[in-house]
Amino acid sequence: MAQPLNRYKADLRDFRFLLFEQFRLQDLLGKEPFAEWGEDECNMVIDGVYQFACDVTGPYNHIGDTQGCRIEDGRVKTPDGFKQAWDKLWAAGWVMLGKPTEIGGQGAPASLTAVSGEMLSGSNTAFNMYPTLTTGAAEVIEKFGTERQRKLYIGKMTDGTFAGTMCLTEPQAGSDVGSASTSAKALGDGRYLIKGTKIFISGGDNDLAENIIHLVLARIEGAEKGTKGLSLFIVPRIRVEDDGSLGELNDCVVPSIEHKMGINGSATCVLNFGDEDDCIGELVGEVPHQGMRQMFMLMNFARIGVGMQGLAVAGSAYQSALEYARERKQGSSIKHFKDPNAARVEIIEHPNIKRDLLHMKATVEGIRALAIKLTMHQDQLAAVEGKDDVSEAYHEGQISLLTPLIKAYATDQAFRIAERAIQIFGGHGYLQDHPVEQACRDAKIFSIYEGTNFIQSMDLVGRKLGQGGGKNTEALLGDIQKWIGAHQDHEVLGESATILKKAHEAVGACVMQFLGWFQRGEMARIPLASETFLELMSELVVGWLLLDAASIALDKLADTPESHPDHAFYVGKRYAAVYFAHHVLAAIPHRAKMLRASDMSAWEMPSEAFGGL
Amino acid sequence: MAQPLNRYKADLRDFRFLLFEQFRLQDLLGKEPFAEWGEDECNMVIDGVYQFACDVTGPYNHIGDTQGCRIEDGRVKTPDGFKQAWDKLWAAGWVMLGKPTEIGGQGAPASLTAVSGEMLSGSNTAFNMYPTLTTGAAEVIEKFGTERQRKLYIGKMTDGTFAGTMCLTEPQAGSDVGSASTSAKALGDGRYLIKGTKIFISGGDNDLAENIIHLVLARIEGAEKGTKGLSLFIVPRIRVEDDGSLGELNDCVVPSIEHKMGINGSATCVLNFGDEDDCIGELVGEVPHQGMRQMFMLMNFARIGVGMQGLAVAGSAYQSALEYARERKQGSSIKHFKDPNAARVEIIEHPNIKRDLLHMKATVEGIRALAIKLTMHQDQLAAVEGKDDVSEAYHEGQISLLTPLIKAYATDQAFRIAERAIQIFGGHGYLQDHPVEQACRDAKIFSIYEGTNFIQSMDLVGRKLGQGGGKNTEALLGDIQKWIGAHQDHEVLGESATILKKAHEAVGACVMQFLGWFQRGEMARIPLASETFLELMSELVVGWLLLDAASIALDKLADTPESHPDHAFYVGKRYAAVYFAHHVLAAIPHRAKMLRASDMSAWEMPSEAFGGL
Repeated sequence: MAQPLNRYKADLRDFRFLLFEQFRLQDLLGKEPFAEWGEDECNMVIDGVYQFACDVTGPYNHIGDTQGCRIEDGRVKTPDGFKQAWDKLWAAGWVMLGKPTEIGGQGAPASLTAVSGEMLSGSNTAFNMYPTLTTGAAEVIEKFGTERQRKLYIGKMTDGTFAGTMCLTEPQAGSDVGSASTSAKALGDGRYLIKGTKIFISGGDNDLAENIIHLVLARIEGAEKGTKGLSLFIVPRIRVEDDGSLGELNDCVVPSIEHKMGINGSATCVLNFGDEDDCIGELVGEVPHQGMRQMFMLMNFARIGVGMQGLAVAGSAYQSALEYARERKQGSSIKHFKDPNAARVEIIEHPNIKRDLLHMKATVEGIRALAIKLTMHQDQLAAVEGKDDVSEAYHEGQISLLTPLIKAYATDQAFRIAERAIQIFGGHGYLQDHPVEQACRDAKIFSIYEGTNFIQSMDLVGRKLGQGGGKNTEALLGDIQKWIGAHQDHEVLGESATILKKAHEAVGACVMQFLGWFQRGEMARIPLASETFLELMSELVVGWLLLDAASIALDKLADTPESHPDHAFYVGKRYAAVYFAHHVLAAIPHRAKMLRASDMSAWEMPSEAFGGL
Repeated sequence: MAQPLNRYKADLRDFRFLLFEQFRLQDLLGKEPFAEWGEDECNMVIDGVYQFACDVTGPYNHIGDTQGCRIEDGRVKTPDGFKQAWDKLWAAGWVMLGKPTEIGGQGAPASLTAVSGEMLSGSNTAFNMYPTLTTGAAEVIEKFGTERQRKLYIGKMTDGTFAGTMCLTEPQAGSDVGSASTSAKALGDGRYLIKGTKIFISGGDNDLAENIIHLVLARIEGAEKGTKGLSLFIVPRIRVEDDGSLGELNDCVVPSIEHKMGINGSATCVLNFGDEDDCIGELVGEVPHQGMRQMFMLMNFARIGVGMQGLAVAGSAYQSALEYARERKQGSSIKHFKDPNAARVEIIEHPNIKRDLLHMKATVEGIRALAIKLTMHQDQLAAVEGKDDVSEAYHEGQISLLTPLIKAYATDQAFRIAERAIQIFGGHGYLQDHPVEQACRDAKIFSIYEGTNFIQSMDLVGRKLGQGGGKNTEALLGDIQKWIGAHQDHEVLGESATILKKAHEAVGACVMQFLGWFQRGEMARIPLASETFLELMSELVVGWLLLDAASIALDKLADTPESHPDHAFYVGKRYAAVYFAHHVLAAIPHRAKMLRASDMSAWEMPSEAFGGL
């Protein structure tokens, strides 16, 4: 079982600060669609999920990693404890926290659900993939399925009886989804014969649920090539009769699972559909060739989810490193560097360790602020839906624009932060005795799945920047601009606001640069620069949100006695923002300049010149 | 056994370029101390070691990782194949390639040995630790031991009969070596009773050799506190009689080994000395309290060795990614982005993948150039030793100055490069089927052991920069300055030389800044800035060496027909240098400016403000 030092930890104070001090969720509570929700309910959820994460999912994080999944008699066995955690999680209701009440959810705000998700995923990211993929698949059926499909599947996919998956990738079709060759042959009665091999299917088999509902991208015979010819099918592992009872086994087998660098508790499966030409599937809804559109709903949901995984693992690794740095004594203070007999101090007192921790704190809290901002847009959208077109378009636009940022930036940083956490633990960080090396291994997949981070960056520059004639980008940059205007003479944060201003200008210039490249058809420049741009834009947003948090914290600090625990918390907000401004934002203008200079060496060099042929 | 795609690969052409085109090893060959060595001999070594790495050590890299080491009946069992590889390695003579002929070595140049070491370590870095730690320990005994000790131990430690270790770390004494509490009590007959627990001892036990000779740092009773009171002891696992025969088991047990993130084939042991008060050790040499000085000889050797491990693993990961990018087809060329029916291309043709590969190539080849430069200084030192004081001081100074650079920069980059390699493999990179995720896990320890990379950076700024009144630093910066002067009007490289010039000035300004901080006693600024400075200085040196290589390659290109394989190789050298200048060197001036601005947020922030208390 977990050592005390390895117990899952989260900074609940920061959750409450973001929800109720920075983003003012309370303004949306007590009225539709959150009429049932008040601040007290939200706080109870935070406390309840935290306890659940510490007591139920957290203790199986290390076990899941070391045991991993295995195949026995053609079925996947998940690690010890996962089945109990699965049952308890559904019973506790946390999976359905943010889901619509119509499908049995609690209809909680998305921002509160994000906080809950951070704790569930941060305590055991591999385990948490099973329920979140299940509800994601259920939502696709809810949105696009027929009345009959909703009746047949949703209930059992929202109480833990059935699990769900999304099946896109094939051996030859990874990032290039349109190359998928899994086929669907109409049987004439609305059913299809599915045939093909899917790989990298998370939870593709498991022993948690009675049945598994696969959502499978396949091409109906004769449909056009590429993504446009793909349709989405419901393919249950065990066929479901019209009365809801389980029928025969479908022709869908799991020949093997992958041995991975991390997330070992999550079974990554190869799935063979129709080896015996007897795999029955049904179209999601009634219209064929809508597969990509339908899957993209799940993908967008999943991309935000993966960004949250990054935040979750980063947050947990930071808390572990912070706790260790406060306990581990090594060396003496630099204040007494001339005295060999000076007392040993906790390593948090060493400037470089403290700097690393502050870097981690600022990055984690900044990404968390980004996550809450994004989900608050979802909540605000829900509040204005059908009432205010302008506001609706604004919130929708921000969600769309921020999605690739959180997916890619949070996950790239998760790996970095776990790496720093290992370094703070020193040699001990390299051991499986502590949770940070697992965090690092788990985190590596986040930058790859649900669209690699490169694909996110191309989504950002190729679609999102120009969406609605550039309106969403303008709105975001305008919001930042407004903040700068209001704070550039701020007593404490004025200098940092000036740094933010220059970063803001630099990012704006990059946006224009991309526009120019697109207009002139200089296409090769775009993929060379897109990843760096996504990072710069993410840093800009994160730096702004940190400064905004600091300005709120400084206001509150004035009325907070030093003896109150909030005092230290607010002081921390100030330093995190100032640090981030001086160490991260300050680099943006020069990095943007380099990006715009657009050195083309990599494109011009002939591939043979890599040698080794 | 290894899949074809997982076979170890190295770029032998680059080895030959560095040795014979850029650094002109041939000028030192055929005369003392390399009278026995000519170009042909060197090339035979390169080919021979490569074949050995591919056929003998490489195939056990993945097996070593998945099997790991285990304890059976109190003894460590290494993975399958390690014992055979150990025997073959000693028989082939590669371990002793660069060692002095007096102790049975082949007396090869250090630069050639570096190339050999890259291949041995790149093909199986965990395995290669056993022989290199053994010869390292032998060299300490050779240098500081008594005549009797040399006779008793060296022979068997240089033919694979005995293995060796270095035992520094204790649970409470990691980076803070001076806190070691292992004790030594004189028995009056020159022998000592050793008592204490050492941890993180690589190869602390193994089934490869008949006996293991531990070099143990311990404090003789009554000696002063801190590092100055430490002595170094020879503590054999099995006592060695004066006639060289093995006697009784010493009181030294291995209660456990660590379960780690990587280098699983290397047994990381806890060693208990003297649990039964019967652990006999003898002082290395005759003078007590010389432990740190003696150990530091091994440490300096080991630090360069760890830098070489970083290069080795980075080089191997790059070769794997390059090969995969040339085989894997996915998506169509950006040149045909409007045509959904365009042919699928190898992913190396995608600009971002090509850019990643070029980044990896430039970084790996630049670090390799740094490694060869450093070891060429060792060779040149050997050639002038006792003949030319000025030249001797110059080469010694450069070795000393470049040691922390290669240790820290090569190992930080190894992790980054393995990470990029995983990303190029996509989801497949996350699987144990390919060698890149192991490379990433193996590499993480390099930034920690033999002095963390932070400690390297403090060694650089606190000791090395100012060594000899700053003479070594001046000499290095002067060498770069000279190159700039000669190349700033270069037709192809002139623009890059100008970028180098600005980077050079910026690094010079940082050196002065550190001097100022030291002089004014602003000590806390130093550890906040040292790691970034080490990186900037390393990038400067690496960028310079890449540009130097490119200028040589461009000269040769003029006489190389396009049909000759060297043509592509030389073109690659040009692009690697120009890329590195525009993407890495170009950032140095701004990063140096930020470093010098020396934001102190992290130091000023009270530790309580991290919250979570």
